[in-house]
Amino acid sequence: MSATPKDGPELGLAERYAVVRACSEALCQPLCIEDYGVQPMDDASPPKWHLAHTTWFFETFLLAEFLDSHRPVDERYEMLFNSYYNGVGEPFPRPRRGHLSRPTVSEVKDYRATVDSAMAALLERDDAEIRRRIELGLQHEQQHQELILTDLKYNLGLNPLKPAYHRHGLDATAATARPLAFTEHEGGDVRIGATGDAFCFDNELPRHRAWLAPFALADRLVTNGEYLAFMRDGGYRNPAWWLADGWDAACANRWCKPLYWREQDGLWFEYRLGGEQPLALSDPVVHVNGFEADAYARWAGCRLPTEFEWEAAAQGLDPAVGNFADAGRLHPGGLSSAQGQMFGDLWEWTSSAYGPYPGYRPPAGTLGEYNGKFMSGQLVLRGGSCATPQGHVRASYRNFFRPGARWQFSGIRLAKDAA
Amino acid sequence: MSATPKDGPELGLAERYAVVRACSEALCQPLCIEDYGVQPMDDASPPKWHLAHTTWFFETFLLAEFLDSHRPVDERYEMLFNSYYNGVGEPFPRPRRGHLSRPTVSEVKDYRATVDSAMAALLERDDAEIRRRIELGLQHEQQHQELILTDLKYNLGLNPLKPAYHRHGLDATAATARPLAFTEHEGGDVRIGATGDAFCFDNELPRHRAWLAPFALADRLVTNGEYLAFMRDGGYRNPAWWLADGWDAACANRWCKPLYWREQDGLWFEYRLGGEQPLALSDPVVHVNGFEADAYARWAGCRLPTEFEWEAAAQGLDPAVGNFADAGRLHPGGLSSAQGQMFGDLWEWTSSAYGPYPGYRPPAGTLGEYNGKFMSGQLVLRGGSCATPQGHVRASYRNFFRPGARWQFSGIRLAKDAA
Amino acid sequence: MSATPKDGPELGLAERYAVVRACSEALCQPLCIEDYGVQPMDDASPPKWHLAHTTWFFETFLLAEFLDSHRPVDERYEMLFNSYYNGVGEPFPRPRRGHLSRPTVSEVKDYRATVDSAMAALLERDDAEIRRRIELGLQHEQQHQELILTDLKYNLGLNPLKPAYHRHGLDATAATARPLAFTEHEGGDVRIGATGDAFCFDNELPRHRAWLAPFALADRLVTNGEYLAFMRDGGYRNPAWWLADGWDAACANRWCKPLYWREQDGLWFEYRLGGEQPLALSDPVVHVNGFEADAYARWAGCRLPTEFEWEAAAQGLDPAVGNFADAGRLHPGGLSSAQGQMFGDLWEWTSSAYGPYPGYRPPAGTLGEYNGKFMSGQLVLRGGSCATPQGHVRASYRNFFRPGARWQFSGIRLAKDAA
Amino acid sequence: MSATPKDGPELGLAERYAVVRACSEALCQPLCIEDYGVQPMDDASPPKWHLAHTTWFFETFLLAEFLDSHRPVDERYEMLFNSYYNGVGEPFPRPRRGHLSRPTVSEVKDYRATVDSAMAALLERDDAEIRRRIELGLQHEQQHQELILTDLKYNLGLNPLKPAYHRHGLDATAATARPLAFTEHEGGDVRIGATGDAFCFDNELPRHRAWLAPFALADRLVTNGEYLAFMRDGGYRNPAWWLADGWDAACANRWCKPLYWREQDGLWFEYRLGGEQPLALSDPVVHVNGFEADAYARWAGCRLPTEFEWEAAAQGLDPAVGNFADAGRLHPGGLSSAQGQMFGDLWEWTSSAYGPYPGYRPPAGTLGEYNGKFMSGQLVLRGGSCATPQGHVRASYRNFFRPGARWQFSGIRLAKDAA
Repeated sequence: MSATPKDGPELGLAERYAVVRACSEALCQPLCIEDYGVQPMDDASPPKWHLAHTTWFFETFLLAEFLDSHRPVDERYEMLFNSYYNGVGEPFPRPRRGHLSRPTVSEVKDYRATVDSAMAALLERDDAEIRRRIELGLQHEQQHQELILTDLKYNLGLNPLKPAYHRHGLDATAATARPLAFTEHEGGDVRIGATGDAFCFDNELPRHRAWLAPFALADRLVTNGEYLAFMRDGGYRNPAWWLADGWDAACANRWCKPLYWREQDGLWFEYRLGGEQPLALSDPVVHVNGFEADAYARWAGCRLPTEFEWEAAAQGLDPAVGNFADAGRLHPGGLSSAQGQMFGDLWEWTSSAYGPYPGYRPPAGTLGEYNGKFMSGQLVLRGGSCATPQGHVRASYRNFFRPGARWQFSGIRLAKDAA
Repeated sequence: MSATPKDGPELGLAERYAVVRACSEALCQPLCIEDYGVQPMDDASPPKWHLAHTTWFFETFLLAEFLDSHRPVDERYEMLFNSYYNGVGEPFPRPRRGHLSRPTVSEVKDYRATVDSAMAALLERDDAEIRRRIELGLQHEQQHQELILTDLKYNLGLNPLKPAYHRHGLDATAATARPLAFTEHEGGDVRIGATGDAFCFDNELPRHRAWLAPFALADRLVTNGEYLAFMRDGGYRNPAWWLADGWDAACANRWCKPLYWREQDGLWFEYRLGGEQPLALSDPVVHVNGFEADAYARWAGCRLPTEFEWEAAAQGLDPAVGNFADAGRLHPGGLSSAQGQMFGDLWEWTSSAYGPYPGYRPPAGTLGEYNGKFMSGQLVLRGGSCATPQGHVRASYRNFFRPGARWQFSGIRLAKDAA
Repeated sequence: MSATPKDGPELGLAERYAVVRACSEALCQPLCIEDYGVQPMDDASPPKWHLAHTTWFFETFLLAEFLDSHRPVDERYEMLFNSYYNGVGEPFPRPRRGHLSRPTVSEVKDYRATVDSAMAALLERDDAEIRRRIELGLQHEQQHQELILTDLKYNLGLNPLKPAYHRHGLDATAATARPLAFTEHEGGDVRIGATGDAFCFDNELPRHRAWLAPFALADRLVTNGEYLAFMRDGGYRNPAWWLADGWDAACANRWCKPLYWREQDGLWFEYRLGGEQPLALSDPVVHVNGFEADAYARWAGCRLPTEFEWEAAAQGLDPAVGNFADAGRLHPGGLSSAQGQMFGDLWEWTSSAYGPYPGYRPPAGTLGEYNGKFMSGQLVLRGGSCATPQGHVRASYRNFFRPGARWQFSGIRLAKDAA
Repeated sequence: MSATPKDGPELGLAERYAVVRACSEALCQPLCIEDYGVQPMDDASPPKWHLAHTTWFFETFLLAEFLDSHRPVDERYEMLFNSYYNGVGEPFPRPRRGHLSRPTVSEVKDYRATVDSAMAALLERDDAEIRRRIELGLQHEQQHQELILTDLKYNLGLNPLKPAYHRHGLDATAATARPLAFTEHEGGDVRIGATGDAFCFDNELPRHRAWLAPFALADRLVTNGEYLAFMRDGGYRNPAWWLADGWDAACANRWCKPLYWREQDGLWFEYRLGGEQPLALSDPVVHVNGFEADAYARWAGCRLPTEFEWEAAAQGLDPAVGNFADAGRLHPGGLSSAQGQMFGDLWEWTSSAYGPYPGYRPPAGTLGEYNGKFMSGQLVLRGGSCATPQGHVRASYRNFFRPGARWQFSGIRLAKDAA
């Protein structure tokens, strides 16, 4: 949640609201009606649910609280589209979101339109708390835009028909990635966390002091070809590379390759949102989980960076540029360029457990459930991905998932102690 | 499967094919596209899957075997729409049928049309085996027509919005059911099983001899009101009425009422395909499982009939008349009429484990998997229901489900030993 | 439970009580203290628990009800040693019986002695109900004597150290079993169930009439060598031989051989209570479950007998003679003898679901839970085994286990329809 | 594992070996043979297993590697008593340790004696690596001494008979604990990790620099009475106090009180190793897990300390004094004294995820599995407990358990940001 929220640099809040809301619907434009309702695993939600839940957020935390004339669009939506705010009421069981054929896609779009109309009155109000919450709702919606893409990819990618989401095919990627090099950082007395000059989530605060030992970061992501070498060296069969929890999970789930890879007659293929294609060896490896990332790093004689190392290295690079969702590629880009990029392409696993910064305090009230209560059992990822909306991330941005999660656009940047 | 198959009494096989196939699609006519894909529990399949699977049956067992010119409509459909025929290949995992947003409803309808066109050539052939298999395919499709309704009801009935499938409301049912009476049967030396004069499934054969002790059968089904008395007497809390497996399952699943009942402020409501309505006390209780039926019977000082008792009592009543799906009511009818009915309304739980008749032999080949391999862990139900196509059942017809299954249109007919 | 109970033919009831009770303790004599407490799976109980539970049975159903002066030995034993009688109170969770290091073995033996002393007064009473219950308690204890052996075998047999229970080694069994032959039975109008001349359980009653088609029964059990041929023919990998439930369970549990077989360097070994030994090909195959027995029979072109066929064939052979526990061998015997035996050696799987006989009524009160409530989901086994006390079984005796249970001394007798 | 190992200050290594090894057996002296084998949950091992596993450690990492004449005591012990060292071979499944009635207690004691005899030769060798490993083996054995007590308590405490381990009853504790006060710490530029002057585990290294904001630590542990107030305020029913994972686990496991508390007729009792006793309100609350500790702290308007805060506050207090296992009380002590204690009594939950220190590198070889691979999904606890051997812990000592673990002697020390 925002500490000292501000509007986007260029658009007014009402314009920004219109743009972000429209973007969610544009992302779903290529879908068949059938695609909107599928929940292919407990952690992934149907696109229809994302469209409704983001709308419920505005209805619940803005309209219901600040617009006296507002009446619930449908009282039952409260339960259906609440994600996890126990302060609001008992949510519909998450694993059953895919069982809701009603409301229909059309009805959900009507819900969106109704809420958007009602929001017009609030978008005009000059009230700091209202503006703060609207901005939070938009940032929230952007997070769900990425989830729409990752959840949809899980659905389509595991369908034996392997349907494509869009027609963005395989780019003419460079035949080889540039050699991996490490950039040294001196560490020392650093400042971590958002500066407070622009919107940030509560979990990026307070900005605080930390000591870092000298370290080195790889100047590009690990490639498919490099990961394949790990696999061919028996990486998935040797417990020496794995954290104990990772080894147990790898055995139980029979992990033996990244999520969307498939072997046939000795050749490897990868499902992308553009369809299944031959594996591009010089592209970044994607859809590995935190245990796989950690095991690969250990095998490579390196380690994952801490989130503080990553942030220290990324400071000064804001505003983030890179391969984001707006580019429409929706797959990590080539690694041939001479210039390293910290932002975009893939969320980068860090070795840091997701926890509170010193002095952290969640906001009062139900919105305090937004981030704080998840500070257990998760790892921090940094940098944004090819499915993240442009402008959503920054050097201090903290994403977090359980170390076994593979369906996000997540990859590996190696680190090591300085020589 | 058919022993000595015959066409329906009035229609030629081609006409009958057209009628039955059209019926499946007509049943889905009230659905939204979103409803076609939902699998609300592992045992229930999405309507779209039923439409495709019944088509796959004709493609696999007729077109692929008897029509030289046939090429698979889509080779991947083999895996997607095979239900359980291991002899054909490994089926797509049943619990994930609801994850298949593709093929779309429109593509499945195209699949149906393509197969129907190709079937025209076989429908004209004067070949006993082909005609036997086509008839089997139609009977098979009728079974799935009932499943479309029961699976859909499970989806809609558990959606908090409780959408209606059709507009058939609450009939003006009689205020009271007629008093329960028992009809005595002398038992003795009876013949059980199909006579072979018309189509029957392999599990109805061979017709064989059995001894029955004198018994009595209730002349109507148990009502909601009677079942409510069982509940109010603590029926769900007293292990004395329950089989051990039933008690364990009732505790684990917290069964405390029939599947679609809901209490609010001391009043009871029931979801029907026409929507949720106040519970009609004089209507038959429906959506109880075999354990509940057995417990109720024990509490009432009676027992469930054996399947042989049921069949002996129903012999001579063919062809079956009663409240079947064709009537469009899709709910068990009133019990005020003076005349008892063995057919239609509800499948009636028997106490008989589903097993082979003496001398039973499944058909050779993959179609031998149709019935025989399920003769373990299931109970026989008899008589057809308000969701069964008219003309599909007969006195010797054996339906079977696990004793804990509640989502079928199943009810309770009491029996007892003759005085 | 007994219909018309009688004392044993030779011993008075008090003597019989002393003999049966002593036998339970004698069976445990070879155990280390450590062996008494192990529960190696949910379905198996620790020997100590069996010793206490059988004692609790006498305390609860005899002393507490008929001996005014009796005070509970320890009120907490009620909960600890009740098996499944809901009418008495909530039992201690079955899967946690192995967690009870206290009471100790010594304390349980004291409990036995205390109850035995108190029983002396009741053993002298000339009261039909008391005598009936004592007889039931002794029959019950004999059932648990067999369970002590099977549960203990599961413990020791799955311990990598493979300790022996006794020193009864491998007999000099015949190099080959006699050829398998079938004995024809004409079937027809038979009587099934106990005659009521001696003790029987309630589930053997009422004696009733049944029709049997002509059938043939194998004159000996299936051998290890024959079963090995099934395995080598891919029996465990071909779903065509399996019931659907059996195939699912075989895949889930990775069944690929009988429970106590082990292969090493191409040689097969079998754990017996005398220790692990090379597999004797001409001995009966033992520790197969009902699904395996059914699959084997199907592969062999035969089927399992029904329980009625088995009983009809065994009538007239009472009192049962064969290889029972009293012989001390505790393993099925050789099959070289010219004479077929229906009793002893191994419990023989039938194809019959365990259900009530026509007119069956469980006894009133808590003891009615003894048999009746388990009439769901189980198969009947007949004939007794090498771990059954001599004199405990008869032609009408019905044992029952779930079709997936393998830890009993269960084997296969083939049947087929008469030519 | 040790960085720069040293002998204990007073004893030579051979003497120390004798003392520590004897202590394990002395802890088991009050046990019945039956108690040695029980594994009451997957995470707890039987005392017999602990006795054997600690011995296997010396056999595997000392005798097998450094004593040429050594032959395995029993080759099968390798698999049975390996805990988790994948580098050595596949361990026996952890949840089945309680199924091993053999080897017997007597055989395990023989195993210990045999290994101890063989160790005599190595204890005399002046070889730094051997001495380092022996010290590690002794520290390892001390860790298992604490586990013997906690695992045993879980067994006895959940037995309905509630047997006592020893006769140490309820002390005359003060009627009231002293008022809770907070001690301020200025934080700043601190050094974290072992100094390397004495034995430490690898996870305490490297010593490194960190920045701490000013903070305050409670001067005593939270009491039963204070925790009861949390419960009475609905602490277990209000999700606002809980981390999301904690709330899910609390609901799933129905946590509503500390592990060994029991309410009867409105009075609270607590099981201690001395038996069940009325709850002493002024004693520290014990056997709460990390989620409960965190929820309590949030409810109290505080938070848990980080492990760095704890260590910074404890530096300078070495060598640790407090209520350790050697005192024989085996329960946290009274809180009336004016002097706060950081060591002993209870392990104190911190908010810190267990991870590697900057520059951490696990030792080469199999012993590298000792600590490093568990750095995922666990929280750090600090300070030692009433079940920890005296002399085993220090300010830099890091214990770690999953946040849901309750069976250790774990309690709550509150922290807060400095005013």
